[in-house]
Amino acid sequence: MLKDKIRVAVNGYGVIGRRVADAVALQADMELVGVADIAHDWRIKIANQKHYPVFAATSEDEAKMREAGVLVEGSLKDLLSKAQVVVDCAPKSVGASNVTKYQDAGVKFIIQGGEKHSVTGHSFVAESNYEQTLGLQSTRVVSCNTTSIVRTLTALKQAGLLKRARGTLLRRATDPWESHLNGIMNTLVPEAHIPSHQGPDAQSVDPDLDVITMAVKVPETLGHVHFWNVQLTKAVSKEEVLTAYRKSSRIAFVKMSEGLTAINTIKDLMMEIGRDRDNLYEVALWEDLVEVKGDEVFYSYMVDNQAIVIPETIDAIRALDGRMKSAKESIQMTNASLGIRSSFI
Amino acid sequence: MLKDKIRVAVNGYGVIGRRVADAVALQADMELVGVADIAHDWRIKIANQKHYPVFAATSEDEAKMREAGVLVEGSLKDLLSKAQVVVDCAPKSVGASNVTKYQDAGVKFIIQGGEKHSVTGHSFVAESNYEQTLGLQSTRVVSCNTTSIVRTLTALKQAGLLKRARGTLLRRATDPWESHLNGIMNTLVPEAHIPSHQGPDAQSVDPDLDVITMAVKVPETLGHVHFWNVQLTKAVSKEEVLTAYRKSSRIAFVKMSEGLTAINTIKDLMMEIGRDRDNLYEVALWEDLVEVKGDEVFYSYMVDNQAIVIPETIDAIRALDGRMKSAKESIQMTNASLGIRSSFI
Amino acid sequence: MLKDKIRVAVNGYGVIGRRVADAVALQADMELVGVADIAHDWRIKIANQKHYPVFAATSEDEAKMREAGVLVEGSLKDLLSKAQVVVDCAPKSVGASNVTKYQDAGVKFIIQGGEKHSVTGHSFVAESNYEQTLGLQSTRVVSCNTTSIVRTLTALKQAGLLKRARGTLLRRATDPWESHLNGIMNTLVPEAHIPSHQGPDAQSVDPDLDVITMAVKVPETLGHVHFWNVQLTKAVSKEEVLTAYRKSSRIAFVKMSEGLTAINTIKDLMMEIGRDRDNLYEVALWEDLVEVKGDEVFYSYMVDNQAIVIPETIDAIRALDGRMKSAKESIQMTNASLGIRSSFI
Amino acid sequence: MLKDKIRVAVNGYGVIGRRVADAVALQADMELVGVADIAHDWRIKIANQKHYPVFAATSEDEAKMREAGVLVEGSLKDLLSKAQVVVDCAPKSVGASNVTKYQDAGVKFIIQGGEKHSVTGHSFVAESNYEQTLGLQSTRVVSCNTTSIVRTLTALKQAGLLKRARGTLLRRATDPWESHLNGIMNTLVPEAHIPSHQGPDAQSVDPDLDVITMAVKVPETLGHVHFWNVQLTKAVSKEEVLTAYRKSSRIAFVKMSEGLTAINTIKDLMMEIGRDRDNLYEVALWEDLVEVKGDEVFYSYMVDNQAIVIPETIDAIRALDGRMKSAKESIQMTNASLGIRSSFI
Repeated sequence: MLKDKIRVAVNGYGVIGRRVADAVALQADMELVGVADIAHDWRIKIANQKHYPVFAATSEDEAKMREAGVLVEGSLKDLLSKAQVVVDCAPKSVGASNVTKYQDAGVKFIIQGGEKHSVTGHSFVAESNYEQTLGLQSTRVVSCNTTSIVRTLTALKQAGLLKRARGTLLRRATDPWESHLNGIMNTLVPEAHIPSHQGPDAQSVDPDLDVITMAVKVPETLGHVHFWNVQLTKAVSKEEVLTAYRKSSRIAFVKMSEGLTAINTIKDLMMEIGRDRDNLYEVALWEDLVEVKGDEVFYSYMVDNQAIVIPETIDAIRALDGRMKSAKESIQMTNASLGIRSSFI
Repeated sequence: MLKDKIRVAVNGYGVIGRRVADAVALQADMELVGVADIAHDWRIKIANQKHYPVFAATSEDEAKMREAGVLVEGSLKDLLSKAQVVVDCAPKSVGASNVTKYQDAGVKFIIQGGEKHSVTGHSFVAESNYEQTLGLQSTRVVSCNTTSIVRTLTALKQAGLLKRARGTLLRRATDPWESHLNGIMNTLVPEAHIPSHQGPDAQSVDPDLDVITMAVKVPETLGHVHFWNVQLTKAVSKEEVLTAYRKSSRIAFVKMSEGLTAINTIKDLMMEIGRDRDNLYEVALWEDLVEVKGDEVFYSYMVDNQAIVIPETIDAIRALDGRMKSAKESIQMTNASLGIRSSFI
Repeated sequence: MLKDKIRVAVNGYGVIGRRVADAVALQADMELVGVADIAHDWRIKIANQKHYPVFAATSEDEAKMREAGVLVEGSLKDLLSKAQVVVDCAPKSVGASNVTKYQDAGVKFIIQGGEKHSVTGHSFVAESNYEQTLGLQSTRVVSCNTTSIVRTLTALKQAGLLKRARGTLLRRATDPWESHLNGIMNTLVPEAHIPSHQGPDAQSVDPDLDVITMAVKVPETLGHVHFWNVQLTKAVSKEEVLTAYRKSSRIAFVKMSEGLTAINTIKDLMMEIGRDRDNLYEVALWEDLVEVKGDEVFYSYMVDNQAIVIPETIDAIRALDGRMKSAKESIQMTNASLGIRSSFI
Repeated sequence: MLKDKIRVAVNGYGVIGRRVADAVALQADMELVGVADIAHDWRIKIANQKHYPVFAATSEDEAKMREAGVLVEGSLKDLLSKAQVVVDCAPKSVGASNVTKYQDAGVKFIIQGGEKHSVTGHSFVAESNYEQTLGLQSTRVVSCNTTSIVRTLTALKQAGLLKRARGTLLRRATDPWESHLNGIMNTLVPEAHIPSHQGPDAQSVDPDLDVITMAVKVPETLGHVHFWNVQLTKAVSKEEVLTAYRKSSRIAFVKMSEGLTAINTIKDLMMEIGRDRDNLYEVALWEDLVEVKGDEVFYSYMVDNQAIVIPETIDAIRALDGRMKSAKESIQMTNASLGIRSSFI
C-alpha cells in the first residue's frame, strides 16, 4: 500500500468520467478530489447526490450550474490545484485543448483514446506497457476497440504465436444515455477508409503488431463485436491458443453453449452478477467459437465500450504516479476492486 | 414486525422471477425458501451463485439441469412443501396450469398479469385494494401497464377528480434479455383490437374506473410509455392535479427541463442512482408535460415493465399472509426496502 | 384541360422535392421547368439521369456541382424566371428565407408544412379549402401529420359528426435516405410540450376544428401512426362513421384481417401494387380497428410522411394558378395521375 | 431467341417467389404459367391483381383461399402439369420436401439456397458454372451471401489473382415484409459456429475456392454487408483488382465519395433509378474502399438478399432448359431485362 493516497481529479462527467470517478473512489490508494463538468441538469446533480465535489469546467457554465441548483465547489483551476493526476474524460477533441491547462497547473494527466497519440506521445494498455509508463508526465489510455486489440494480440504475442492479425470491427452507433439525440437507424455504415484507424492505433502501444482492421457502424447501443482472422507463427491446437489468452487477466471466456449467444445476453449476465452499471471490463471472448485451421485462428469477442478502459485508466494513474513499480501488482489491485474475473459462470 | 417470517417461493426465474426473488430476500419479514425453473444454462446458474436454493420446475428438466452442473435442491413439489406463499413467475399461460399444483400443495399463490383474472377471481394493486386482499388464498398482480393505470387513475379518483380516461399505450416489443430471439424491426404494430385489454383489465381491480385504451407495439426494449387524456369532474388547476398524484407513493415526477427528455435517459438515471438492475419501480410521470385544459388533463409517463410489479408483488405476499392489516404499513416497508422515491433529482 | 400548361419549378430535390418533381411531370396540365438543389453527389445526379433541368440553388454551390460532374442549367434565379409557380422543398427554415427570392421574381409559391403559417398567411389541404385558395399568390401545404388530421376530421365534420378530437401521434424518427446520419435508437422521445403543434396547425387550415394532440418520436423510419379518440355530436353506428370517411377520396381502408397488421406490411403492399417509391398517398385507416362506443369513436391510421403531401401539393399548384375552379376536378385529376385508390385489395 | 417459350411455374409467392415471377414475366423466352402459395390474405391477392394464375400449394389451404376471395386456378399438381421448369420458392426446408412432387410430375426444378446441396447434387451461379448446368434435371441457386461470394471470388480467380479469402458477413436479421413478426433488437448475434456455412457453400459451386467465413446477425432489414481480406497470388496494384472485378457483369461499383456511405443510401439509389421493388441485383462494391497492401486486398460490399438471386434464377431456368448454350448470351439477356448495370451514377 502506498503511504499517501494519489489525489485524482476527473474532468468530464459523462459515460467514461462517471465510471472513472466511481472506480477511483473504490481504490484504497487513491482519493477522488473532485469532478468537473459543464452540465447543469440531472447528469451532474447525480454527482452531488454521490457527494463527489463538483467543479465547473468553464467559467461560462459555472453560473448556469449554480442557477440550476448544482452545488459547485469551484473552477477547474481550483480542482487541478488539489490533484496530482487528472483524468481527462471530456468529449473527443476537447481533451486535446485541455492539455495546456493541465500543464500550467503542473498536474500529471491522462487523456482518452479519442485524442491523438501525438498529444501525449505515449499510449497505454496495462498488460502491454505499464512499466514503460512509470513516472511519465502524461499518457493516453487508448480507445475501447484498441484496448481489446492490444489485450488479445499481446496474449498471442507473449505466447510466441502472433504473426499477423486481420480484424473486422462492428461498432455500436451511440451510447444508451444519448441514444435519443443521435444514432443510425436500420442501416450499416462502413468506416470511410480501409484500413480503419484501430489497427495503426494498436501500433501506437506496440509497434511490433502486424494488424489491419476494417470497421462498420451498426444500429445498436450495447457494445462492439470483433471478428478476427490471425495468422500464427505455426500450426497449433485450439488448446494452445486458449492457454495463451488465459495468461491475460482481462480476457474472460464466455460460451454460446451456456446460452450466451448474443451481446444482449452478455450484458444481461453483467447485470445479474451485480456489476456496477452492468460494466463488462473484460474482453468477453467466445471460447466455443475459437477455431484453429492449420496456422490460422478465427475468433470473436464483445467489447463494452463504456467499461473496458476503466481498469486501464486506474492502472495508468498508478503508472504516472510511479511508486507502484509492478504492472502485475497494480493490475491485481485494480481487478480485485472492480471484481474482474476470468470467467463468469 | 411479524413474529415469524413469511416463507416465500418463486416459480420461474426469468425477468420477473429474478427480481421478485431479490426483493423477497430484502424484506425483513420474509424468507426466500427457493426458486424453481427449467433452465439449465447461465440464467439459472446465477441463482446458484447468489446461493438461492434452486429447484427443478419439472421432473423432465431436473436431469438436464444436474447434467449441466446446476445445483438442484429438489423438485417444485419439494419447494412448495417449504413455502407459505408461492409467486408464480412462469411464462404467460404456464402460470394458469400451475394453479392445481399450488392448490394441491395447500400453498397460497400469486399469479402474474399475463394470466386471466378468472384464474384467481381477484386482481391486485396495493394502493387500490390491499385491504380487500387480506387473508385470501390467492390473487393476481396485474400487468405492468395495468398497474400504472390503476396507480394514476386511483390517485385522481381519490382526489374526486376522475370522470373518464382515454389512453394510448406504446409497448416495448421485447425484453433486453431475449432481444436476440424475438422482436420487431423498424415498424409499429397496433394491437389488433380497440379497446385494447388494459382498460378492462384495470376494471378487474376497480370496476368503477371509466377507462378505454388503445395499444401499439414499438421497436424498443426499455419500457412502455402512456399518453392520457382524462376528463375530470370539473375544471381545475394543474397544481390540483399534481397534488392528487403526489398522494401516491409510487408515482415519481420527472422533468423534461432536467434533461430527462426520453426513456433512455430515465433508465440511465436509474443506473446512476444505483438501482438494482436499473429498476424503475415508480410510474415516472413527466411533471412539465402535464397540461390542463378546462376539465381535461393530458399527461404522459414511462412504465418499466420489468420492475413496476415488483413492489406490488411484495405487498400482495403480505396481504395474502394477512397479518399486516395496513396497506400503508406494507407499502412503506416495501418502498423503503427498494429505495422507492417520489422524486429522483 | 387547361389551354397552357402551368410552368412549375421545384426548389429542393430531397425527400419531398423529388416526389413533387415526378408528380408534376405526370400532370397533363403542368410542365416541370426544372429543379434546384445544392447537392453535388449521387442525389442530384439522379435528376440529370431523369433529364430534369437542374439548377444551382446557391451560387456558392454551383461551382462544386459543376466540378463534381453535375449538369447545371443555371441559377435559381434563372429557374424562377421560367416558372409560374415554385414549390419550395428546401429543408425546414430555409424555406422561409427563400420567400423574398420568390417574391422578387414575381412567381407564385408553395411552402411546406415545416414552415410557419405566418410565412404565407394561408395553409392548404385540398378537401378542406381548395376553393379559398384560388388565385392566391402563395400557400403552405401543411405537414404530413396535419394533412392526415385535416382529411379525417373534415370527413367527420362534413358528415355533421365531429365534436372534439384528441389524438396521440407516433412520429417516425428520420427518413430512410438519411438514417445513416441521424436517428434515435432503442428509445421513445415524447415531444417536449403538450399539446403538440399538430393540433393548432390543423386549425390553421380549419379554425373550427376542436383538436388537441400529443406526439412522440419512435425508432422507426417508415411513417407515422395516429391513435384518435373523437367525441361525436351524437351516438352513431360504426357504419355511419365509415360512410363519413368514404366521402374523402384520400382515405383508404386497410384491414388487420387481410394481414395488414403493421406499417411494414402496408409499405410492402405499396411496393407490390407498383407504387412509385412505395408511396402511400392516402391515409391508410384500419377499418377493422374502428370502434364506436356511444358518442365516441376510436381509430388508428398510418401516414406516409414522404408521400401524403404530394397530391396536396399538386392541387395547391392548380389552386394558385386559379384556372381550375373545382376542387373536385383537380382532386380527381391528381388522384388518377398518381393511382390513388379508396382500397388496395 | 428460342422457338418455343419455356413454361415456368413458381411455387411459393413470398420475398423471392414474387420477384422471380415478375422476372420470368419479363423474359422474352419464358412464359409464367402460374404461381402457387398457401396464403389467403393480401399477399396472394396481389398476384390476382397482376393477373398471374394462382394455384393452391396444398389441398388443405385451397378451401381457405377460395373462401377468402382468392381466385384459385387449381392445385399445385395442376400447375406442375403446365410447366417445364418449376422454381421452388417455398420457405426453407419445405423446398426439400417438395422435390418428390416435382419428380413425380416430371418437371425440371430449381431449389433455393436455403436447401442443402445434396437435394439436387448441383449448385449454381451463372458466371461460374452455367455451361455445366446445361440440360440437368435440377439445380440449386445458392443463397444470396454465397452468390455474392462466388461472383467476387470468381472474378479474382479468373484474373489469376485468388489465393485465399477470409470474410466476415453481417446478415440482416429479417426481411421488411415480416419485420413485425420476428427480428432481433439492439443486439448482435454471431453465428454459432466458425467457420460459418457460407464458405463451404461457395465450394459447392466451385470446389477450388479457398474461402473461410464468419457471420453475425445485425439489427437491420435492408441487406447484408461483407468485409473481405483476400490473399492474392502476388502483389498487384489496386487498378488490377478493379479490372478483375469489372469482368463480372454483376458487380457494380459504388463510391463513398458520391455520398453512398451506407446501405440505406444504396437502397435509396435503387429507388431513385426506378428499380422494381428497389431491387439491387448486383454486388454493390465500394470502389473507394478497396485497399491493396502487398499481396493482400481488403474490400467491402452490399448484398441485397431479396434480389441478388433473381438474375441467377432466370439463368438457371435457361440452363436447365438447355437450348441456350452460352452463359454469356443468357446473362446478357437477363441483365438487359432487369436493367442490370456496372455502375449507377
